[in-house]
Amino acid sequence: MGTQNTSNSFNSAIILITVISQLCLSTGINVWPQPRLMSWPQSQATLLSPNFIITSPNHPYLSSAVNRYLNLIKTEHYRFQLTPSVNFTTSTPPLLTLLISVDQLLTPLHHGVDESYTLTIPATGSTANLTAQTVWGAMRGLETFSQLVWGEPSRVAVGLYVWDSPLFAHRGLMLDTSRNYFGVDDILRTIEAMSGNKMNVFHWHITDSHSFPLVIPSEPDLATKGSYGPDMQYSPDDVKKIVEFGLAHGVRVVPEIDSPGHTGSWAEAYPEIVTCANMFWWPAQNEWADRLASEPGTGHLNPLNPKTYQVLKNVIRDVVNLFPEPFYHAGADEIIPGCWKADPTIQSFLSKGGTLSQVLENFVNITLPFIVSLNRTVVYWEDVLLDDLIKVESSFLPPEHTILQTWNNGPNNTKKIVKAGYRAIVSSSEFYYLDCGHGDFLGNDSQYDQPSVSNIGDGGSWCGPFKTWQTIYNYDITYGLSEEEAKLVVGGEVALWSEQADPTVLDARLWPRTSAMAEALWSGNRDEKGNKRYAKATDRLNEWRYRMVSRGIGAEPIQPLWCVRNPGMCNTVHPFV
Amino acid sequence: MGTQNTSNSFNSAIILITVISQLCLSTGINVWPQPRLMSWPQSQATLLSPNFIITSPNHPYLSSAVNRYLNLIKTEHYRFQLTPSVNFTTSTPPLLTLLISVDQLLTPLHHGVDESYTLTIPATGSTANLTAQTVWGAMRGLETFSQLVWGEPSRVAVGLYVWDSPLFAHRGLMLDTSRNYFGVDDILRTIEAMSGNKMNVFHWHITDSHSFPLVIPSEPDLATKGSYGPDMQYSPDDVKKIVEFGLAHGVRVVPEIDSPGHTGSWAEAYPEIVTCANMFWWPAQNEWADRLASEPGTGHLNPLNPKTYQVLKNVIRDVVNLFPEPFYHAGADEIIPGCWKADPTIQSFLSKGGTLSQVLENFVNITLPFIVSLNRTVVYWEDVLLDDLIKVESSFLPPEHTILQTWNNGPNNTKKIVKAGYRAIVSSSEFYYLDCGHGDFLGNDSQYDQPSVSNIGDGGSWCGPFKTWQTIYNYDITYGLSEEEAKLVVGGEVALWSEQADPTVLDARLWPRTSAMAEALWSGNRDEKGNKRYAKATDRLNEWRYRMVSRGIGAEPIQPLWCVRNPGMCNTVHPFV
Repeated sequence: MGTQNTSNSFNSAIILITVISQLCLSTGINVWPQPRLMSWPQSQATLLSPNFIITSPNHPYLSSAVNRYLNLIKTEHYRFQLTPSVNFTTSTPPLLTLLISVDQLLTPLHHGVDESYTLTIPATGSTANLTAQTVWGAMRGLETFSQLVWGEPSRVAVGLYVWDSPLFAHRGLMLDTSRNYFGVDDILRTIEAMSGNKMNVFHWHITDSHSFPLVIPSEPDLATKGSYGPDMQYSPDDVKKIVEFGLAHGVRVVPEIDSPGHTGSWAEAYPEIVTCANMFWWPAQNEWADRLASEPGTGHLNPLNPKTYQVLKNVIRDVVNLFPEPFYHAGADEIIPGCWKADPTIQSFLSKGGTLSQVLENFVNITLPFIVSLNRTVVYWEDVLLDDLIKVESSFLPPEHTILQTWNNGPNNTKKIVKAGYRAIVSSSEFYYLDCGHGDFLGNDSQYDQPSVSNIGDGGSWCGPFKTWQTIYNYDITYGLSEEEAKLVVGGEVALWSEQADPTVLDARLWPRTSAMAEALWSGNRDEKGNKRYAKATDRLNEWRYRMVSRGIGAEPIQPLWCVRNPGMCNTVHPFV
Repeated sequence: MGTQNTSNSFNSAIILITVISQLCLSTGINVWPQPRLMSWPQSQATLLSPNFIITSPNHPYLSSAVNRYLNLIKTEHYRFQLTPSVNFTTSTPPLLTLLISVDQLLTPLHHGVDESYTLTIPATGSTANLTAQTVWGAMRGLETFSQLVWGEPSRVAVGLYVWDSPLFAHRGLMLDTSRNYFGVDDILRTIEAMSGNKMNVFHWHITDSHSFPLVIPSEPDLATKGSYGPDMQYSPDDVKKIVEFGLAHGVRVVPEIDSPGHTGSWAEAYPEIVTCANMFWWPAQNEWADRLASEPGTGHLNPLNPKTYQVLKNVIRDVVNLFPEPFYHAGADEIIPGCWKADPTIQSFLSKGGTLSQVLENFVNITLPFIVSLNRTVVYWEDVLLDDLIKVESSFLPPEHTILQTWNNGPNNTKKIVKAGYRAIVSSSEFYYLDCGHGDFLGNDSQYDQPSVSNIGDGGSWCGPFKTWQTIYNYDITYGLSEEEAKLVVGGEVALWSEQADPTVLDARLWPRTSAMAEALWSGNRDEKGNKRYAKATDRLNEWRYRMVSRGIGAEPIQPLWCVRNPGMCNTVHPFV
């Protein structure tokens, strides 16, 4: 107690973090993700005035956020589960105003935008100040402010100073809406929860071999024939709603149209441009190397058929029009040799000495410049460069226009990507794949028909076990990189592939595990000694989980309520010893 | 095709199962759990008459079930996801009546009650017949009938014969309502889902160290002070509602009042009868052997304090009055030496040469005969006999009044229990614990604060990994037993301990994994060759999962919808090869 942030220097601020974060723990106030610097030396609180207002510069998305947060702050009445040791007093005036100042009001929500903010709530006086470089930083500060209000009547922490800014620019969540469909409301609720966790990229894996739910105005047959049905499509109006909702929440919506692999669903409208469509994915007599797809659901676009580009360019052009976001995710993962080899044109090309990698290079050489010409940075899965069998030379992938998203081999592939000079988005399946560990989804897998007593293990889930929140929190996405290399890691994304997820389980699969990554990428996962702080994060995450539930997100519980009611008693090191 | 069940002998029936179950697979009709014998040789179907009725003998619970199923059958309009190759015709008359006959109308729902039924739906004619020995068997048959109806207008399989009866008498689900609270509606929905899966025992682990939610009329302070709050209690009316709901669904509600361990919550009302209450569970300087509880939340009833029995007998008496069910689960798991040793009276007893096992024997010797005197069979967790440190001699546990529930060491402890002459309920944590694999729930576990790259594995969940539906389906609960020994295995229970479960995740944690056990205990998990059939069960389970969702159970998906729409295409052995 008595510590006060009177220093303006950043170094002093860093030292303060230690002291203050411990104060915060003991007082039970909770902001998730933890701010980079939060000072609340006297643990003071006062009432929030019933006439509390937020004033801000006029900006369509910021004003929308202000209205939303004002409503949330006035109606949430979230009750601290951890009893905060707060010096609450009504002798100081209630807080009446949060005054927002933004330096650069016109800065759009692009990759790398300044999201820093400073929040000052004086110990006495009726006005708090939130200052930010951009409206997006102001939104992050609004979220922090909302988490400093609790109870009925509403109380608010005062005598508090926060300086905050993310460690990583790209903090994303990938949702696959092809294998199973999610309604627009599911997506909006997910974006809202992301915003609460200060995440900023909704990577929408829209299409795949299983269904093509996106209505492409110039190619309407793709969804009409390739979706699961008219009630399982996304219209242009749906997309607009999602994109606008994202902007109002500081969340970019990055579309992924996976190709040339993962395109079986395109064959419903255009069978002629898809190789090996509607075939059984792995005939029993074949070796694994001779399968036709990485999983059931076959079909690759045929790069040697000119018609392919006619359709695909229409798709790309329309998607670029639907999504103002400067990133375009083009997929390019898991090209399976057997699928292309099943096509006579490609066979002929191979018989003349061509290679499958050349087939892919042909594809990339036509599509990448086209996407770039539409002012988009292209994101690919790492496979396009790192696949064992089918990949392109790096000369086909200009680093200034290309970002690679890694999912295999943990830190090793991240290293390969940045060493090759590319920016990396980390989605290591060992750490960030949220769908793993729920058992094999394959039917009639005769290898399991054994009379043995059991088949424990992961039940065939290729990426099992289930990734716990601790596993996710603990992962260092720049592990093993030099300082220079680490700069190329723009951030990370958790991924929910939907073979075994649909709206019944969406919230619980995502939350609070995604919150774990959100904090690790915002303010890190280590304390001042360089030790992992995830154990210490348990109480805070639990508290945050309860607040998310109160906000309508069905996040799964991480502890008995008893632990929340008895702070410190569920620890394994007595906090008072 | 053309196969018909004209034999009356059971052996012939067994041979038929093979043929017919394969027919069923190819025609896509789905009953879960799979009946022991189902013959539908011509795959015929007709309309269900809009005036369809069910006639049954008058019986309060059966009539309730008939009304429920009649409503379900007329309104469900479930659409087969797997396109059934059904010979549908409207040239035969619609099915107008299901006529139920019950031989022994007064047989109560007790352990081992006859649940067999025969269902005959003629190919022509307007009346189907359901015959059963008991109303409980009739309810199982009603469930089967309901799963034979689909579409709008409703169609129904005809030319069909089912003979069915469970392999195991005890098919249960345990829910822990102490660590986190579940509302009455959550419990009713769970019982309804159990009934749909032909399960018959809801084992209600009501109380534990974390909260005491059950209102005991003669000891009201236990809930008033020991529950999580007035909105997180079960009143006698709530219990009555749950018990009656269970009876109307053929589901026994077996109460568990865990003692003498797991009783920390009792100390809120009666601190004098609880040893080591409200202490930190595992002080940092102590060895694991010297901990005070198996997990945070300390407190054991003190067997050497006469007041203990005064309170406990009131509890037992009231619980017996609240629950008509003849089983009473008395817990008796995880007695932790450190907790009893913390008590001066017990220390004094030990210093005079007594042992902790004698303390437990004292407890069992007073409580077991009391429970038996109230006409109850006592169920204990296996620990009471098999614990390494604190256990009773078998002479304290008369086998005719005692059933032991196993949870450790897989088949080995089952074997120990039955070899000692006890009936066993199998809840092996390696196979049947539904809560495992979601990460450690302990806070501030300093052993994890390491600067290493990751902590993958199970994240500290002691019973990880997550038990997949395949793991559960595959488990043979009589593995390694002689035929005689196997007869003592009365059945099994999946268990959902609620450290990391509450209403947000209840349905998805339970279903469809619990369905996997339900089928394994009803009709087995092997085909006629003795091979596990779980791989073949995937399509059927998927179909059943969708029907459960349509009935309001938020079961998790096990496959992409694409697999359901493309039968056989997600297999790993081509079904047509």
